[in-house]
Amino acid sequence: MSAVTELSPVGDDVRLGDLGEHAILEHILRPRYGGVRGFGDDCAVLDAEDGLRGDLVATTDSCPTPLVTILGETDPYHAGWLLATINLSDLAAAGATPLGLVVNYTLPKTTTAGEFRRLLDGVDDCTKKHGTKVVGGDLRDGPVRQLTATAIGRCVPDGRLGRLGAEAGDRLLLVGSPGYLWSYALLVEQQARLSDSVVAEIRERACKPMAQVAAGNALATAGLARAAMDVSDGLFPTVRTLCGANGLGARITTAIQLDEPLADVCAQSGLGRFELAQAWGDWTLVVAVRPEDVGLAKKTLDGEGVAAQEIGVLVPREEGISLDDGEPWEGIAQERFSPSSWHGGELPRLITEVLGKRAS
Amino acid sequence: MSAVTELSPVGDDVRLGDLGEHAILEHILRPRYGGVRGFGDDCAVLDAEDGLRGDLVATTDSCPTPLVTILGETDPYHAGWLLATINLSDLAAAGATPLGLVVNYTLPKTTTAGEFRRLLDGVDDCTKKHGTKVVGGDLRDGPVRQLTATAIGRCVPDGRLGRLGAEAGDRLLLVGSPGYLWSYALLVEQQARLSDSVVAEIRERACKPMAQVAAGNALATAGLARAAMDVSDGLFPTVRTLCGANGLGARITTAIQLDEPLADVCAQSGLGRFELAQAWGDWTLVVAVRPEDVGLAKKTLDGEGVAAQEIGVLVPREEGISLDDGEPWEGIAQERFSPSSWHGGELPRLITEVLGKRAS
Repeated sequence: MSAVTELSPVGDDVRLGDLGEHAILEHILRPRYGGVRGFGDDCAVLDAEDGLRGDLVATTDSCPTPLVTILGETDPYHAGWLLATINLSDLAAAGATPLGLVVNYTLPKTTTAGEFRRLLDGVDDCTKKHGTKVVGGDLRDGPVRQLTATAIGRCVPDGRLGRLGAEAGDRLLLVGSPGYLWSYALLVEQQARLSDSVVAEIRERACKPMAQVAAGNALATAGLARAAMDVSDGLFPTVRTLCGANGLGARITTAIQLDEPLADVCAQSGLGRFELAQAWGDWTLVVAVRPEDVGLAKKTLDGEGVAAQEIGVLVPREEGISLDDGEPWEGIAQERFSPSSWHGGELPRLITEVLGKRAS
Repeated sequence: MSAVTELSPVGDDVRLGDLGEHAILEHILRPRYGGVRGFGDDCAVLDAEDGLRGDLVATTDSCPTPLVTILGETDPYHAGWLLATINLSDLAAAGATPLGLVVNYTLPKTTTAGEFRRLLDGVDDCTKKHGTKVVGGDLRDGPVRQLTATAIGRCVPDGRLGRLGAEAGDRLLLVGSPGYLWSYALLVEQQARLSDSVVAEIRERACKPMAQVAAGNALATAGLARAAMDVSDGLFPTVRTLCGANGLGARITTAIQLDEPLADVCAQSGLGRFELAQAWGDWTLVVAVRPEDVGLAKKTLDGEGVAAQEIGVLVPREEGISLDDGEPWEGIAQERFSPSSWHGGELPRLITEVLGKRAS
């Protein structure tokens, strides 16, 4: 045992499930790895030393059971697509261009060739959309399906984005279109009804979310982003983490814009737009931008065909994280190693847990 | 579904467990990924395009239950060490220098902080031994412990090693010292007895195997290796795969040298030395070397403090894979997605399966 372990206030007998992700990070991982470049960022940084222009970054994530699977979309394609998306989204938050994905599949022996092919189709289609591909991997059998991938990317010279670097006064941009995944859940749960064609489009975007790789790269290349993080666990924990990393607070607007069909879903299901926009699953980015750069950043993103909206401003830490009415923001945060950790489950309960709303 | 899928002779309803790893590779993965640079090699190759001297490679592997855990060494340290070793061994086979490891842990919530720290200690100690470190990762809770890592490395310019490149007449070198892990199993099973201090040393090497990173890198730098592969599933499948990739056969000597205490274990337990040397778990490399380079290769490895011995010669395919008595070699091969796939289990049965010997 290292000295670090002895210094830690967390005893060896404590269970990780009683600590929660945040305490695990602070008390076990930070003392050990806090000195590693990029610690706490979505991507790790590799010291490639010579020659390479721009940092080499890597990120690894496992794929949980996709929400759409619980919504009846049992085609393994969606898990494959999501696996690639989750990892590419971390590259997006670093402003990196993907160099490739290595995949690691543990599959039960009872998996059929057809199911396996669909899984691969999902990964391959998603990586192709982002101009990259699977370059290697590992496959083994095991009792439980476990899908893991590692995405490797390269940043523009001096342009790696991370959680650090924001200052009070910076504006927060939400990059991408929130609300598609959980709107689809509300539609499946029949809390709202829309025309078949609109539902089909929402379903498509829920099943095949796009990581904001091009957007992150464009902002990094233009030097317009000071800090960035992807919304993997919801808007509130993302903003809270960005604030925490930079020793800042934030004032967030509740007047978040949703695409029109999603606003319809909110109206019909009695859910606030801000509540829907807080949910995870759309792989948006939160980016801190200097006030004078907001216009150019939006224009740059518009050029990439990506929606972006200002959702608030970073403020001194003492002001805390509040909403535009001045009330403290206590959003819903899914935390790993806690009762809120995502493991799928019954849809009505999920909707309540994630959207903070009783299913009707 | 792609055209590739339609061409494949394996129907969608076939289960992976009825195909086995080899058929999955040939009928599902090769049609899809066969054109990717480095397909079939231990490491994937990333196209970093500009600047970087030498190929950038990545490899990913999950860690099964270590054999030593079944042998009573339940400290999670050993799983951590093994996780790093498995991945670094693939870099070794590419002749690459590690740039870093990203780790991906799924752990039950009941895991204690102490167990988690020991796991991290194992990974960190092993990476440190090889001059590298964990640069990032992901942690989530789940019902079953699943440990995955990705190692990223850089090859010497024009010096990436892979399975391809060997020719008939090349000698096969076994790099490293085989037999430690399964000797320890035989000692635990009391099929042999040695002094406490010797047992302790064998136990140490079984619990903390060293990937041949320095050796692989030294051979690649010196341009002495034509092809290489690590012995992750046993000597026979390694030689068979190397032969298959190059369209060659091999003649292998049964007179493999073991370190003296391991020869003792063989003698006491009635196991042939060649049988013990065929087992997996010691993370040796098999390297194809031009006949005229054998001396220099051995000397180079000796300089690294790594044992190496000539174990055979590559021959034209028609001659098949045989032993020095001319008989075909039908070694024991553990194949994933087959009944032989490694999942731990009862020790006497394991010894029979892996060493091809009835437990007494």
